[in-house]
Amino acid sequence: MARIKLGMVGGGKDAFIGAVHRIAARIDGEYELVAGALSSTPERAKESGEALGLAPDRIYSDFREMAIREKRLKDGIEAVAIVTPNHVHYPAAREFLKRGIHVICDKPLTSTLPDARKLAKLAAESDAVFALTHNYTGYPMVRQAREMVAAGELGTIRVVQVEYPQDWLTTAVEQTGTNKQSEWRTDPERSGAGGSTGDIGTHAFNLASFVSGLELEALAADLQSFVPGRRVDDNGHVMLRFKGGARGMLWCSQVAPGNENALRIRVYGDKGGLEWAQEDPNYLWHTPFGEPKRLLTRAGAGARDVAARVSRVPGGHPEGYLEGFANIYTEAARAIRAKQAGEAIPKDVLFPTVEDGLLGVAFVDACVRSSARNAAWVTLA
Amino acid sequence: MARIKLGMVGGGKDAFIGAVHRIAARIDGEYELVAGALSSTPERAKESGEALGLAPDRIYSDFREMAIREKRLKDGIEAVAIVTPNHVHYPAAREFLKRGIHVICDKPLTSTLPDARKLAKLAAESDAVFALTHNYTGYPMVRQAREMVAAGELGTIRVVQVEYPQDWLTTAVEQTGTNKQSEWRTDPERSGAGGSTGDIGTHAFNLASFVSGLELEALAADLQSFVPGRRVDDNGHVMLRFKGGARGMLWCSQVAPGNENALRIRVYGDKGGLEWAQEDPNYLWHTPFGEPKRLLTRAGAGARDVAARVSRVPGGHPEGYLEGFANIYTEAARAIRAKQAGEAIPKDVLFPTVEDGLLGVAFVDACVRSSARNAAWVTLA
Amino acid sequence: MARIKLGMVGGGKDAFIGAVHRIAARIDGEYELVAGALSSTPERAKESGEALGLAPDRIYSDFREMAIREKRLKDGIEAVAIVTPNHVHYPAAREFLKRGIHVICDKPLTSTLPDARKLAKLAAESDAVFALTHNYTGYPMVRQAREMVAAGELGTIRVVQVEYPQDWLTTAVEQTGTNKQSEWRTDPERSGAGGSTGDIGTHAFNLASFVSGLELEALAADLQSFVPGRRVDDNGHVMLRFKGGARGMLWCSQVAPGNENALRIRVYGDKGGLEWAQEDPNYLWHTPFGEPKRLLTRAGAGARDVAARVSRVPGGHPEGYLEGFANIYTEAARAIRAKQAGEAIPKDVLFPTVEDGLLGVAFVDACVRSSARNAAWVTLA
Amino acid sequence: MARIKLGMVGGGKDAFIGAVHRIAARIDGEYELVAGALSSTPERAKESGEALGLAPDRIYSDFREMAIREKRLKDGIEAVAIVTPNHVHYPAAREFLKRGIHVICDKPLTSTLPDARKLAKLAAESDAVFALTHNYTGYPMVRQAREMVAAGELGTIRVVQVEYPQDWLTTAVEQTGTNKQSEWRTDPERSGAGGSTGDIGTHAFNLASFVSGLELEALAADLQSFVPGRRVDDNGHVMLRFKGGARGMLWCSQVAPGNENALRIRVYGDKGGLEWAQEDPNYLWHTPFGEPKRLLTRAGAGARDVAARVSRVPGGHPEGYLEGFANIYTEAARAIRAKQAGEAIPKDVLFPTVEDGLLGVAFVDACVRSSARNAAWVTLA
Repeated sequence: MARIKLGMVGGGKDAFIGAVHRIAARIDGEYELVAGALSSTPERAKESGEALGLAPDRIYSDFREMAIREKRLKDGIEAVAIVTPNHVHYPAAREFLKRGIHVICDKPLTSTLPDARKLAKLAAESDAVFALTHNYTGYPMVRQAREMVAAGELGTIRVVQVEYPQDWLTTAVEQTGTNKQSEWRTDPERSGAGGSTGDIGTHAFNLASFVSGLELEALAADLQSFVPGRRVDDNGHVMLRFKGGARGMLWCSQVAPGNENALRIRVYGDKGGLEWAQEDPNYLWHTPFGEPKRLLTRAGAGARDVAARVSRVPGGHPEGYLEGFANIYTEAARAIRAKQAGEAIPKDVLFPTVEDGLLGVAFVDACVRSSARNAAWVTLA
Repeated sequence: MARIKLGMVGGGKDAFIGAVHRIAARIDGEYELVAGALSSTPERAKESGEALGLAPDRIYSDFREMAIREKRLKDGIEAVAIVTPNHVHYPAAREFLKRGIHVICDKPLTSTLPDARKLAKLAAESDAVFALTHNYTGYPMVRQAREMVAAGELGTIRVVQVEYPQDWLTTAVEQTGTNKQSEWRTDPERSGAGGSTGDIGTHAFNLASFVSGLELEALAADLQSFVPGRRVDDNGHVMLRFKGGARGMLWCSQVAPGNENALRIRVYGDKGGLEWAQEDPNYLWHTPFGEPKRLLTRAGAGARDVAARVSRVPGGHPEGYLEGFANIYTEAARAIRAKQAGEAIPKDVLFPTVEDGLLGVAFVDACVRSSARNAAWVTLA
Repeated sequence: MARIKLGMVGGGKDAFIGAVHRIAARIDGEYELVAGALSSTPERAKESGEALGLAPDRIYSDFREMAIREKRLKDGIEAVAIVTPNHVHYPAAREFLKRGIHVICDKPLTSTLPDARKLAKLAAESDAVFALTHNYTGYPMVRQAREMVAAGELGTIRVVQVEYPQDWLTTAVEQTGTNKQSEWRTDPERSGAGGSTGDIGTHAFNLASFVSGLELEALAADLQSFVPGRRVDDNGHVMLRFKGGARGMLWCSQVAPGNENALRIRVYGDKGGLEWAQEDPNYLWHTPFGEPKRLLTRAGAGARDVAARVSRVPGGHPEGYLEGFANIYTEAARAIRAKQAGEAIPKDVLFPTVEDGLLGVAFVDACVRSSARNAAWVTLA
Repeated sequence: MARIKLGMVGGGKDAFIGAVHRIAARIDGEYELVAGALSSTPERAKESGEALGLAPDRIYSDFREMAIREKRLKDGIEAVAIVTPNHVHYPAAREFLKRGIHVICDKPLTSTLPDARKLAKLAAESDAVFALTHNYTGYPMVRQAREMVAAGELGTIRVVQVEYPQDWLTTAVEQTGTNKQSEWRTDPERSGAGGSTGDIGTHAFNLASFVSGLELEALAADLQSFVPGRRVDDNGHVMLRFKGGARGMLWCSQVAPGNENALRIRVYGDKGGLEWAQEDPNYLWHTPFGEPKRLLTRAGAGARDVAARVSRVPGGHPEGYLEGFANIYTEAARAIRAKQAGEAIPKDVLFPTVEDGLLGVAFVDACVRSSARNAAWVTLA
């Protein structure tokens, strides 16, 4: 099958997540990167595009120009990956969505809640596929966890504990002039009102929602900026109340030394529990009440079809972050191909949608509002 | 040196913690159990006392009678261990304290805050030693963690995450008539207003205070009783604000399948982090910012004097719960012997005091008050 | 840079390792699969080729025909991946090597020692690059381990413990007619005289040699075929003596329930130790004598340049088996591009060579000889 | 019940294992230490005895004198713990056995095989109980492992992998004059012909025999003394052949940096596997073939009666080395009390016997003989 022709907005030199998207798009051979507006600085865009082997006439420095021209090309891009700082997600996505070009967008959906709502509306009205890379839902054992919960294997869910600690912002690295990532990610104009809540808290919240299948009723958040001069939160403690009575806690931090990307979720019901950790993603603990703990392994003993379907190699041969990320791309490709064929999207296709993204931005907004009111309970706006 | 003559109140057949206290008292050879009011039911008291080899005339069914008579005996008890349900701690301790008999009391200090205050006052006025078995502070690596924090090795503390999940109350076992432990521990009259918060939340709070050296400013608690018909909380989510600006979260649960006694603490400062877990107590993770994680082992590489002093066997030969518990007893013995010799208690003697116990009961009280007010911020009363 | 045009021999439907090679070749965008003799059965070759999107005229059922024709094509393949059962490695590689087409060959090098010697000679005489996919040497932390040993950080190496247990041949699955993999891998004609020794023992031996930098002096092997009717060994215990005095043990097994691909190596010198496990490949334990254990993480704290160079994502975002495998492909690509440019291969290019492969086949041969002589000490032939 | 009056030979100041025996004897309240020949140096014996609170007339410097006098005393010792260097085990045990005083002896049984045989004969002829502290068999989960194997839950055993690495002799500490332990343990006159094989290899061999229930057919050992000037082996690699066809490997080392007391056993049958590690003794992995791994916990989910019977506290409250050691003492106490009561020893009483000890010394002898013959296969003499 011919590869889906892919463009990219953002992701030039020094960007971290652009390279991740490119590898993820490549792993299963479903996409071919053919065009890019990799930077808004023309020289940088050119240099970055050439380094990736793009044809000179497919290198742009303006995403709108790219959208317009590619749309007209016979072999123009069919999909675009948007990997810019958060505040550009909305304006960029808009240009492609309204031209029917499928969009794969990095998270969080946007830097503001109004933008998120507008984008959700646009995506709903468009016939294009819109996928958001809450990539952790691409891990096979996360999907199995979700399925086990949905099948009632844990009984009625009571407690959800989720956390995402990091340590890379333990010091004021954004004030040193040496770390681009930290600069825009701690700049509310570009990143949004939430710092750690937006950057990683949204991942944790998305994961909790995805696995538990629960809908949030209210949250109470106590956010801090521990590093002097930091303009956004770098640590957040959040209590969660879910509809139906389940309770939970979410902790996100970028100032917890010794933690790299220690996203972890635990879900407890009246029949059992589950535990999964992103840094060791091939394992899933299942603890049926009153029985020995079981360590399920990806594609190994205890793995279900839902996990095996998005695995590539046998149990004991670890898959990692890039494969999980690739699963989002490949699931999106299945949706895109169905659309292109005029067929219904297969029922088992599963990737984070614009609605998930809207929830994420609403989560950040709620955390910021709650914290401003001394951790009062608030609902998602 | 002659062993300290010990009496025991509570701890008859079917009691769990009484046997633990007896072993802990025995491990270092510092105490000899010579008397007991092991049950308030005379027959049961007799049977239990005989099973332990107590002389018939040292078996009581009334702790007041025991206090009175033992005080008069030439070889009467010098110390008493109180291991009854919580509501008896205060009346029992009172009888011994006022007669100058040293008290080693199980936690929480009392079932109510007024009782706790009265007991604290009594203990302060008495010349007797009062030790509370917040036994987890007896683990060598917990003591080392405390010392490392105090020495500034983690820098300024920012975040404290502590949790104590269990699963033994996942079902309504207290309603089956087969489990004595669960009956009194879920009975507010005997246990106190807090269920999981009192039984294990106090341990978690004590551990957080002990290791971090921080004082609580306020807390916001969301408590639940997930099991229908349960009269006390079986799960608690608590946000913590410490004086000086540090923040934290505490989670205690007795309905989290797969967790036995999974007490765990993580402390993060601007220079590094620490992590310790009760179920694997011989290890302490130290994560200086920007350096590889270090796994310190009890009495092994990386262990400090403060840990070695309360260790018995070399690194790699695990010590456990009973040894940690014994450390409380042995530290108390040092204090008792100093008192008996009319000497000052050595400065390095370290065991939980009545003040720690009062804080614990105040913690439970604050959790219950906060939760009743929809998780409002409250201070310790 | 244009992608290297790649052909593939073997790897049709039902094959496991062919798909792995294809993904590995794709991850870094260095290769494009354009031709294949994916099966020697024409219909199967056609079906498999079409499924991969190969042009009809680039689908072959005879590798010799493919070598001849591709050599003549203007855009013919520049490199070939050989992923057939072992006995075909030599005849297939020969056809490509003698036409100057670069070869990336699965392990073990060949099914017999004479074949291995002939192939090593051919490769030495050819100007083509020959890379063998002892893929575990592609893991970043394995490369770091090697470098740390070479730099003397462990002192003089004394002991090397290496093992590779699996469980997939615990029962006589090859006799059920339902598992192609097990059939050829337990058939001495196709797999070679060694079963577990050839399939996974060679990986373990290669890893031990790679990390320790030591050369084998002699070995004593006790091989077993535990499953009735099995024609090759399914478990092997091997004592190792290295030149210079170091000692070691190697255990490979395919009948150890609970083990998926539990390759693990530990190396001890007079100054420290190292430990690495394939199933958790992003970690490397370093244990300098007398100091706390250190857990080094890929691309994180404690990672060296040699590991960072072959990493794609930050620490805490796990890379896995496919990324390690891709590193072999990408390193080979660097060698191929250097050859094509008439330049010297960069000094830091590192991938397993035909000589490593010859050592591996000699290892299997020695194990079989030793075991036949009651585990007598033998040298590599 | 009255405590068993215990004497001790060896175990004065600076000795490690004497203190362990004393705590182990105390934990369950079954013994009271009343006499000791703690050192053969009178002054040291006196000082050590006084430090332990022994009555002056129960302090000896000659074990023979102690045996003679205590035998005559009305309240003389009923049992003796022998915790001297190995070469004294036989002469000391002899004096007590022949007087009908029960003996609890540290391992290995003796420093020479002839001594071991003589002692075995003496013990067989005596009516006294003889227990050997291969203490690792006292761990509850080790006992459960043994029972699971015996019950056929693993099927027919095929492979046993056992190892006991340490690092405390990585350097020539015995040549520094500062470490008494290392001096006698590396002195063949006092320790026996085996160094690491005798000190820890015997533990590993005993554990393998205990858990697997298999009898050794032959072994092939390659022993090394890596540290210059060391007079006994400090590292041993041993291949094992068991009667009935099972195979195994044993590794013991005292020069493996990062290992404290990393005794570990893995047993594999055709239906499943087991894994247990001494440093984390409350866990037992059970891996039934084709099913998820299960983590059984002491006294928790998956624990059997055989483990619960020798546990003191609930699951999740770790027991350690001293409790396992105490189990040997307490089981021996049950045997002693049965003897004293003229009753048969209860069938479930389980502790290592003089025969186990003889096997251990024969194991060391066989290792030394095999290694001297270039790792030839030898049988136990």
